[in-house]
Amino acid sequence: MAAKQERWRELAEVKRELAERDWFPATSGNLSIKVTDEPLTFLVTASGKDKRKETVEDFLLVDQNGEPAESGHSLKPSAETLLHTHLYNKTNAGCCLHVHTVNNNVISELYGDQKKITFKGQEIIKALGLWEENAEVTVPIIENPAHIPTLAALFAEEISEDSGAVLIRNHGITAWGKTAFEAKRVLEAYEFLFSYHLKLKTLEHQLVK
Amino acid sequence: MAAKQERWRELAEVKRELAERDWFPATSGNLSIKVTDEPLTFLVTASGKDKRKETVEDFLLVDQNGEPAESGHSLKPSAETLLHTHLYNKTNAGCCLHVHTVNNNVISELYGDQKKITFKGQEIIKALGLWEENAEVTVPIIENPAHIPTLAALFAEEISEDSGAVLIRNHGITAWGKTAFEAKRVLEAYEFLFSYHLKLKTLEHQLVK
Amino acid sequence: MAAKQERWRELAEVKRELAERDWFPATSGNLSIKVTDEPLTFLVTASGKDKRKETVEDFLLVDQNGEPAESGHSLKPSAETLLHTHLYNKTNAGCCLHVHTVNNNVISELYGDQKKITFKGQEIIKALGLWEENAEVTVPIIENPAHIPTLAALFAEEISEDSGAVLIRNHGITAWGKTAFEAKRVLEAYEFLFSYHLKLKTLEHQLVK
Amino acid sequence: MAAKQERWRELAEVKRELAERDWFPATSGNLSIKVTDEPLTFLVTASGKDKRKETVEDFLLVDQNGEPAESGHSLKPSAETLLHTHLYNKTNAGCCLHVHTVNNNVISELYGDQKKITFKGQEIIKALGLWEENAEVTVPIIENPAHIPTLAALFAEEISEDSGAVLIRNHGITAWGKTAFEAKRVLEAYEFLFSYHLKLKTLEHQLVK
Repeated sequence: MAAKQERWRELAEVKRELAERDWFPATSGNLSIKVTDEPLTFLVTASGKDKRKETVEDFLLVDQNGEPAESGHSLKPSAETLLHTHLYNKTNAGCCLHVHTVNNNVISELYGDQKKITFKGQEIIKALGLWEENAEVTVPIIENPAHIPTLAALFAEEISEDSGAVLIRNHGITAWGKTAFEAKRVLEAYEFLFSYHLKLKTLEHQLVK
Repeated sequence: MAAKQERWRELAEVKRELAERDWFPATSGNLSIKVTDEPLTFLVTASGKDKRKETVEDFLLVDQNGEPAESGHSLKPSAETLLHTHLYNKTNAGCCLHVHTVNNNVISELYGDQKKITFKGQEIIKALGLWEENAEVTVPIIENPAHIPTLAALFAEEISEDSGAVLIRNHGITAWGKTAFEAKRVLEAYEFLFSYHLKLKTLEHQLVK
Repeated sequence: MAAKQERWRELAEVKRELAERDWFPATSGNLSIKVTDEPLTFLVTASGKDKRKETVEDFLLVDQNGEPAESGHSLKPSAETLLHTHLYNKTNAGCCLHVHTVNNNVISELYGDQKKITFKGQEIIKALGLWEENAEVTVPIIENPAHIPTLAALFAEEISEDSGAVLIRNHGITAWGKTAFEAKRVLEAYEFLFSYHLKLKTLEHQLVK
Repeated sequence: MAAKQERWRELAEVKRELAERDWFPATSGNLSIKVTDEPLTFLVTASGKDKRKETVEDFLLVDQNGEPAESGHSLKPSAETLLHTHLYNKTNAGCCLHVHTVNNNVISELYGDQKKITFKGQEIIKALGLWEENAEVTVPIIENPAHIPTLAALFAEEISEDSGAVLIRNHGITAWGKTAFEAKRVLEAYEFLFSYHLKLKTLEHQLVK
């Protein structure tokens, strides 16, 4: 029980910060955090809630298939819980954050045909655990089929590490890490890189370098 | 009485969030929420107030003609109450939000001559209740005559559904839904689409796709 | 004494809102509010203070020459108090707000050679008291001599109305009104127009209209 | 002891403000404030902490070599403490703020090959202590070797004054002053200049001046 409360507190804290940044427009976005391994259970955001609010119905516990693991409530897990389920079944990730921001949507469309975007040489890449000079990092961009199992399968093909991120075209980013702290750091690093990239591109061709 | 207090609380909560986003520049904007159907009464923002503040004079109850439905106060309904009146008389909308943002004004001018703007394939369109893949949504753009009855008539021509939005050129957006929760979700979805569209257009022609 | 306290409260409230918008970068900006007419006295921001903080030393009372009107403190009025002094001596303005924002600085440089910028047909112009359709409003842009009396003289040439605004090139905007409420509405309306104008110009040439 | 508490309070206040601006993405950034001269000791941010939070473990006291000056804790100083150490050993600076923002990163890349960027004629340059008309200020831009001692040496070559700033390419800005108040003013002035410059460049070539 204590583990669930502690994970709930950690996920609620991350949700509060992302809400302060207005990263849940139009009730979009879904978050989760692992509570137990054997059997796998995780807390996931309830479907359709206004994530700027904090209530005792913000999250529900689900099992390794993404089905409610506790009775006595009528909450439904987020429609995209299957992506979180694949992640926890395939890696040792402990926290998964999915948000729609204007920048991650624009990047996902501009580079959607290339199915990826690569960043190189920015200091903030160290926040992704890559410490060598001029480190390079690539984010895959998958298409956004409306059929969630198909989307989840595309997502599952791109996940192997315990921390990372995948862009879903014209939809959003899913970023994860071993802890809530790491998952938030990964998400913030990528959102910084997206903003940086868009601003640089806006000006690069106008300024003689 | 309880219904009025509950609707007042819901509208005040939406107003607070929109104020936090600074979506009421220069005392612009007006909001309303239906209280009763038979007869139609709704709470509407009082004219000329600073919507970043919260006072007991923020809203007043008006009837189906937009006239004050209660005595004992000197509050005047917003100058644009007639648009809200048309909406509640023509549809089952329950909440109507009108705000001026820089993005919705720029979109309304850039596409004003085409009298509409269409969005297609963005995930956030699901927040407008359209779940099929590559769903398309079109927002009509009407001109902005200073004569409010003329403006209200143009607006009335564009409303038929219980949730939706209309852009008023170089003025703002009016978004509505059956509840305050839905109206805010619709408004947030469109403001996301406007920001996304403007940012994509800024960069699209510079980046080889 | 009561008038001074009431004006102090009103100016502190405006300062708090402008600080929330981060409109006092690097301790820039100065604000004032008239307390008495005969003799003219007004509260003005003390020089060099961090305007994101609230202390009892935020403002000091000065006379019609901008000199401290009360003893018992070592506060110095803002270096640009002379502009406020000219305003209160020449008009019935009751509150004057001077802030540096990136947008008002960029507008002041882009249109500095033309010494003015004109806006037409935006709904928010009504917040400036102009209600007719397609109303037009022009903001003069003056140069920014380092010598404050010279700057104040240039400013004095542009002021005649009880509410309005003047842009100072690569420096900021000074906006005023008969009350703190009106001055803030005028300032917010112009900052909206500047943001709108810059965003429209960024995209206009790229989008076939 | 009192000096350390006072300096802690001042640095915590600056950290709070910079966090409110979201200037510590992905746990980036490091701050320090001098406590004693003989011997040199200063408080510096602990490594890897989420700087949006406030805890008693936010800072630790280090000596003139950047090594922990007190026992009884397991905190490690920021990985980039060596830059702060050079600054306090070479100048009379009293506070040093290092932050990653999208704008300072974009500026550092756009002008990285020129190894500097110069600003001239903006009023906010007065916040840097330069009061003459059309004052000019130049910020050096150094490369960003992953090896911290090499980076610190490049940084040390650029510092001579008690207040100033250096851009580190695709990394961030380090700004300093004799006090926390001055360091924050310097940082805010440069971030304003970067935002102004980027916005002006975005539009300058499109608008006939």
